[in-house]
Amino acid sequence: MRTRAAVALEAGKPLEIMEVELEGPKAGEVLVEIKATGLCHTDEFTRSGADPEGLFPCILGHEGAGVVLEVGEGVTTLKPGDHVIPLYTPECRECASCLSGKTNLCTAIRNTQGQGLMPDGTTRFKMLDGTPIYHYMGCSTFANHTVMPEIALAKVREDAPFDKICYIGCGVTTGIGAVINTAGVEIGSTAAVFGLGGIGLNVIQGLRMAGCDMIIGVDLNDDKAEMAKKFGMTHFVNPSKVENTVAEIVNLTKRGIDQIGGVDYSFDATGNVKVMRDALECSHRGWGVSVIIGVAPAGAEISTRPFQLVTGRVWKGTAFGGAKGRTDVPKFVDWYMDGKIEIDPMITHKLTLDEINHGFDLMHEGKSIRAVVEY
Amino acid sequence: MRTRAAVALEAGKPLEIMEVELEGPKAGEVLVEIKATGLCHTDEFTRSGADPEGLFPCILGHEGAGVVLEVGEGVTTLKPGDHVIPLYTPECRECASCLSGKTNLCTAIRNTQGQGLMPDGTTRFKMLDGTPIYHYMGCSTFANHTVMPEIALAKVREDAPFDKICYIGCGVTTGIGAVINTAGVEIGSTAAVFGLGGIGLNVIQGLRMAGCDMIIGVDLNDDKAEMAKKFGMTHFVNPSKVENTVAEIVNLTKRGIDQIGGVDYSFDATGNVKVMRDALECSHRGWGVSVIIGVAPAGAEISTRPFQLVTGRVWKGTAFGGAKGRTDVPKFVDWYMDGKIEIDPMITHKLTLDEINHGFDLMHEGKSIRAVVEY
Repeated sequence: MRTRAAVALEAGKPLEIMEVELEGPKAGEVLVEIKATGLCHTDEFTRSGADPEGLFPCILGHEGAGVVLEVGEGVTTLKPGDHVIPLYTPECRECASCLSGKTNLCTAIRNTQGQGLMPDGTTRFKMLDGTPIYHYMGCSTFANHTVMPEIALAKVREDAPFDKICYIGCGVTTGIGAVINTAGVEIGSTAAVFGLGGIGLNVIQGLRMAGCDMIIGVDLNDDKAEMAKKFGMTHFVNPSKVENTVAEIVNLTKRGIDQIGGVDYSFDATGNVKVMRDALECSHRGWGVSVIIGVAPAGAEISTRPFQLVTGRVWKGTAFGGAKGRTDVPKFVDWYMDGKIEIDPMITHKLTLDEINHGFDLMHEGKSIRAVVEY
Repeated sequence: MRTRAAVALEAGKPLEIMEVELEGPKAGEVLVEIKATGLCHTDEFTRSGADPEGLFPCILGHEGAGVVLEVGEGVTTLKPGDHVIPLYTPECRECASCLSGKTNLCTAIRNTQGQGLMPDGTTRFKMLDGTPIYHYMGCSTFANHTVMPEIALAKVREDAPFDKICYIGCGVTTGIGAVINTAGVEIGSTAAVFGLGGIGLNVIQGLRMAGCDMIIGVDLNDDKAEMAKKFGMTHFVNPSKVENTVAEIVNLTKRGIDQIGGVDYSFDATGNVKVMRDALECSHRGWGVSVIIGVAPAGAEISTRPFQLVTGRVWKGTAFGGAKGRTDVPKFVDWYMDGKIEIDPMITHKLTLDEINHGFDLMHEGKSIRAVVEY
């Protein structure tokens, strides 16, 4: 079949909207009509050419929602008409990682996915001249139709609006999941969130759900504070306006008879390795847990004195918020529908596919939290 | 009173054995006759002048065992005749850290201890000319008698031999505690231990207790392998004899259908920040936990790509094996007496106090695992 897609022909170039050929689903695969997709910094990381593993031409996009149109041979858990959210982290429930109970990083199709291919080692997309187009993060939601493995689709309830729940496909789950799955934040905790973009805001609402006493937001841009407060931020620190960000946070959190400061949990949602260090070092001696969410530039390294860890801080990271997609994503959709989590105020811009490059402009200008393309 | 002690008069100089003045215990303090003390790398770190926080003159030593001679006002949990192990990490059971249930890093006397002083801000030791002598790690077990806070003494059973259980005051607890308290190793795990000195051997016996399937020892010295095998090491890697230590360990641990290698747990017992990185990076994608035990040189920093953490590895550290001294040390002594842990083969040299400098020579020459001074 033919479908319309925003194709990244070359690194650093705007996406080109065009008709492409899409082959139907093979065994274990599913054809999905994408109804809406968010634009994430990770798409831009690859589009811009900063991603050393970027492959071109490709169809970007990994934060979508849609409807199953057709299933390939052997597909048993999905049928045409089912509403689904694509998962860039699949959940096969058979690999050592899925069965470990310790990680969400399913390895079933990792190798081919990393090469922009379906599990059989080929692509379903082609240019009209026959040139194969790479898949992206196993999803390619910047196409009106896409083909994905069954294990990379979460079936969700049918009354949930596509233009909101698409955000659960990445940002919402990454932020809230980092709090509840990776950090395991308890009621009454203190926390700091570095970077108040889309991920940071979701971390903040996750912390609010988790019952934190203090939620300290950290951003160079004062304008970010207003929205963050709406999601539960209780204190704001602008690193450009204090002498030492770590000391500021430690002072803010001095509690109890010992007056030893430091947050119980900290989160980096910036991708800046210097910020990751601050996030670790502002966490509490003895038990502070610092979680890296942001994607760092190629080759960048984090560092600290080992003393920081020897005195009880724990440094971790999270991918897709530690969420097992097929299991957890439907739960996040329920939470949204039940009003337990907010998404609507974060979807600041709606675009058509033809306007998608404008969405990246909005991202660069810091004007959008999330721009969503509706097909 | 007067007692004999090995005094570190200046950084980098041999210890001098001499008579010193020791003031009796003040309120909340206890006079202890030290019966035996181990010589630990940390003592040497300070003696040599490498420790930027070293204070002189001081009486080093923090790995001892002895008998209570006298208790100060208000001491309720100890009485003359009790057998005790000094704790450089006290357990007050009243500070926020002790009460958190999350850390063993009691803060009750942290500030004064770090300054080489008793909690009232003075020293109990003096030179015969009246010059104050600093305490060391709150213990100063290189003196035949010492004064310590009640909260820094673990009461232990009286049938346990001082010349063996003194090692529980640091090395044994640090190594085994890192496995059971900090890492929380489960039966059937795989693990790598970097550095097969006194701490590394205790990590290995901890891993054996924890029921590990594979215990990989890593050391530049092949001669260390024999002893490590006796404590439970199942595989040995000499980094000078393989192209890439991380790759070697990953290959050794490829298991199951996915054939993704990496150890479930790794431990650095070297203090070398490059080794700490290898230890992290040889741990398993998705769930590997790497624990830093070694003390790094002043100013040295650990580093890695954040991707290592984002893909599920956890970087932690441990001090005194995460053990709460007054609670856990008596249990370790029971384990030794019950034959559950081994200490005797690790006490390779016995010395008198007059021979203490020879003990540091043995350490440098790699000839001793633990040299113990008996008074």
